[in-house]
Amino acid sequence: MKTVDINCDLGESFGVYQVGHDDEIMPYLSSANIACGFHAGDPGVMKQTVRLAKKHGVAVGAHPGYPDLAGFGRREMAIPPDELEAILLYQIGALAGICKAEGVELIHVKPHGALYNKSAKDISLATMIARTVRSFSKDLVLVGLAGSRSIEAGETAGIQMRSEGFADRVYEPDGSLRSRTLPGAMLTDPEEVARHGLELARKGVTALVGGKTLHWDIQTICLHGDEPKAIDNARAIRAILEANS
Amino acid sequence: MKTVDINCDLGESFGVYQVGHDDEIMPYLSSANIACGFHAGDPGVMKQTVRLAKKHGVAVGAHPGYPDLAGFGRREMAIPPDELEAILLYQIGALAGICKAEGVELIHVKPHGALYNKSAKDISLATMIARTVRSFSKDLVLVGLAGSRSIEAGETAGIQMRSEGFADRVYEPDGSLRSRTLPGAMLTDPEEVARHGLELARKGVTALVGGKTLHWDIQTICLHGDEPKAIDNARAIRAILEANS
Amino acid sequence: MKTVDINCDLGESFGVYQVGHDDEIMPYLSSANIACGFHAGDPGVMKQTVRLAKKHGVAVGAHPGYPDLAGFGRREMAIPPDELEAILLYQIGALAGICKAEGVELIHVKPHGALYNKSAKDISLATMIARTVRSFSKDLVLVGLAGSRSIEAGETAGIQMRSEGFADRVYEPDGSLRSRTLPGAMLTDPEEVARHGLELARKGVTALVGGKTLHWDIQTICLHGDEPKAIDNARAIRAILEANS
Amino acid sequence: MKTVDINCDLGESFGVYQVGHDDEIMPYLSSANIACGFHAGDPGVMKQTVRLAKKHGVAVGAHPGYPDLAGFGRREMAIPPDELEAILLYQIGALAGICKAEGVELIHVKPHGALYNKSAKDISLATMIARTVRSFSKDLVLVGLAGSRSIEAGETAGIQMRSEGFADRVYEPDGSLRSRTLPGAMLTDPEEVARHGLELARKGVTALVGGKTLHWDIQTICLHGDEPKAIDNARAIRAILEANS
Repeated sequence: MKTVDINCDLGESFGVYQVGHDDEIMPYLSSANIACGFHAGDPGVMKQTVRLAKKHGVAVGAHPGYPDLAGFGRREMAIPPDELEAILLYQIGALAGICKAEGVELIHVKPHGALYNKSAKDISLATMIARTVRSFSKDLVLVGLAGSRSIEAGETAGIQMRSEGFADRVYEPDGSLRSRTLPGAMLTDPEEVARHGLELARKGVTALVGGKTLHWDIQTICLHGDEPKAIDNARAIRAILEANS
Repeated sequence: MKTVDINCDLGESFGVYQVGHDDEIMPYLSSANIACGFHAGDPGVMKQTVRLAKKHGVAVGAHPGYPDLAGFGRREMAIPPDELEAILLYQIGALAGICKAEGVELIHVKPHGALYNKSAKDISLATMIARTVRSFSKDLVLVGLAGSRSIEAGETAGIQMRSEGFADRVYEPDGSLRSRTLPGAMLTDPEEVARHGLELARKGVTALVGGKTLHWDIQTICLHGDEPKAIDNARAIRAILEANS
Repeated sequence: MKTVDINCDLGESFGVYQVGHDDEIMPYLSSANIACGFHAGDPGVMKQTVRLAKKHGVAVGAHPGYPDLAGFGRREMAIPPDELEAILLYQIGALAGICKAEGVELIHVKPHGALYNKSAKDISLATMIARTVRSFSKDLVLVGLAGSRSIEAGETAGIQMRSEGFADRVYEPDGSLRSRTLPGAMLTDPEEVARHGLELARKGVTALVGGKTLHWDIQTICLHGDEPKAIDNARAIRAILEANS
Repeated sequence: MKTVDINCDLGESFGVYQVGHDDEIMPYLSSANIACGFHAGDPGVMKQTVRLAKKHGVAVGAHPGYPDLAGFGRREMAIPPDELEAILLYQIGALAGICKAEGVELIHVKPHGALYNKSAKDISLATMIARTVRSFSKDLVLVGLAGSRSIEAGETAGIQMRSEGFADRVYEPDGSLRSRTLPGAMLTDPEEVARHGLELARKGVTALVGGKTLHWDIQTICLHGDEPKAIDNARAIRAILEANS
């Protein structure tokens, strides 16, 4: 089996406000998506998180979001594409600047929250994001939802894409994530999460869309750092993937 | 006579708020200090300003400031050195990110407002700034007040410093800038400003400090973009420096 | 003819960023809508603007907007109703606090930008706004677009509504404002603006909607303070309304 | 023994960032100092906290701070008095607006963090704060450090002052609080905290300053909501004060 990346959103604290368990979860990751100060994080937190990733040999990526700390980047904002492009470059560059001072390479970009979700469905936004990432560096990897417009746009733009799957989320037959408002949408048992992660890593996602069967590989598995059993999930999934690699 | 750089703070608009005359003053500059979104500027404005500088072949530098849009970075803030270092890297990196996408090289850094003024007097702050700039890149040039602690700290840190003089400000016998609260502190006639700039470029600043005569070379001359005669000053100083080069 | 109110959005400067011509336009108004620091304005600007209104005997109203200084409150944000209600009370209260210290009564509320436009069409948002205003004070007047959902919601909520018309905008046969992207949507000649304002004040707006002829009274006329001829428009409209009262 | 007020800083969460244990500590208080969105808190959090205080019959006060969310209002900012006055009125008014909608009266004001500490020593700042509070309402109570310039300024300004003591802090012989950087500066045993609180309530603070013995009454006792034993402290101090009232 090919090696599968494990990623998690980190560096989401701000000033005196501490969230997440970055110290505990970092050892189980291969990639850290670090918030860039617009929806979460601040320069000092970014520096600490880059250092923590470096210490554990975890790849650092930018996790840019909408400029909305009060809403944690989870609500859509009608920002014109030109401005949004500059907002993305600003955040990616800011983290890259901190990485440079710490002697760490910036490897990937994963949009956050409403930006991630909207770009999964909106080819125009997805294309803008892919081109913006490419304009910063042709070597940056862009992470997007497997089977989504994000992947399609990135491939068209000629950048390296990484298809993401969610170990603790249930998939619908059409390959979409079951809405969190529905019962049973989230897997909560660490062993179950780990088995689901292994299955995603091995077999990807199979979706029945409009009578056609589609198949999407999964190159990176997302862990949620704010779930009650986040650390247990991380440990279990890391163990099962290593045991089966 | 050696060539002297002409710099100006630009890109200080924010959202719908337009300030300065960037389009008109850019053609007369050799270096543009672009605000980085903390005391002024925003990502979209930064992108436009980088493009404008590129169009006119003007060198681009970062102009980072305190995180205080309401105070325009002009009032001191008691930010711990560790956090301030990250704040500087964040801003420098953000502009560097936009430059990268526009195919423009980031050449220099000039701290803004209260940060500039405090670092001119405070060797500890000046040293932190110099080391932070060096940690981003050994090739970045740091601009500081001629004869100040900023220059001293930068030289100790082993980075390339550029000593700044002010064409429209009167110098006291001790080499300090006459306080703007005193009458006659500002030169307002463009021809007079230009002659003063030429003198600074040719002879630098001579200061009598504690019975000793000091001499500071001037490598860059600052223009103020928000003065009533900003454009006339820029035109006059550019003309006189070219005529005498 | 009944007396018609003349209102204008003021106090939109922020920190060093100066916009508008508040000093010049205030004498021609009867109501000032003062920005409350979320989309524009800051506490110091609010205080100055309240004082200016008091000096000219102009009624003070709150002009709350989305929390988006970078976008000037002109772009929609998906803020949950509960939070938006608190955001409105916060802004209204903040201005009321400054008014209290200045011995000025807060008379009205007019939502700004995207909030104004969305509430004109969305009965649910309009109802939330009307109820929020009522919860602050049963004596506050709410300003809304004539013939819109805002007026409907306010009347249902039992608060005093003021129907607004735009002297410098052309109305479509269905009573809506002609889109600014269309040619001729804006009247630019002060005399023409004034005549249109007088007509709105006298006859209101007549709209043909779904085969039915509707009529909406106009109780307040909005001036735009940022138009090139803003002061001329204000002078002309004030003169024509006084001459015909 | 006279009744002594127990106060605590609450409503310090922001967006998704949750801090404190407001639900648990509120029942033990008589006064809640609610953050007003500048150093902590947001409109939605303010509304929830006002409702919680109302439910428990706890008096609501404004807890305004410097505009510095990243620094939690704990670092000094060189804001001109005129602007700071407007910043205070804005915050007090904003909370008063939310109180009005919830049918709750605003009783007191307690400055936060660096503003509280600076006003305790700086008569000019203390006087500005006292006058600003009075300009909002002659009925507002202002809370300040016992024996400090805050109390002096408030009495001169003719407003009702409430002298504050800290149950979990050790006092130096000169009546100042022992620096938290020194060992033993904080009492950590709830019973000890409670006994100290009772002593403060009964006897106030006795200070030897410049050879003179001074005595300051304590009218309100501050609890820290972010200490590890915050709830235990609150319960113990409430019990001991009730048992001895």
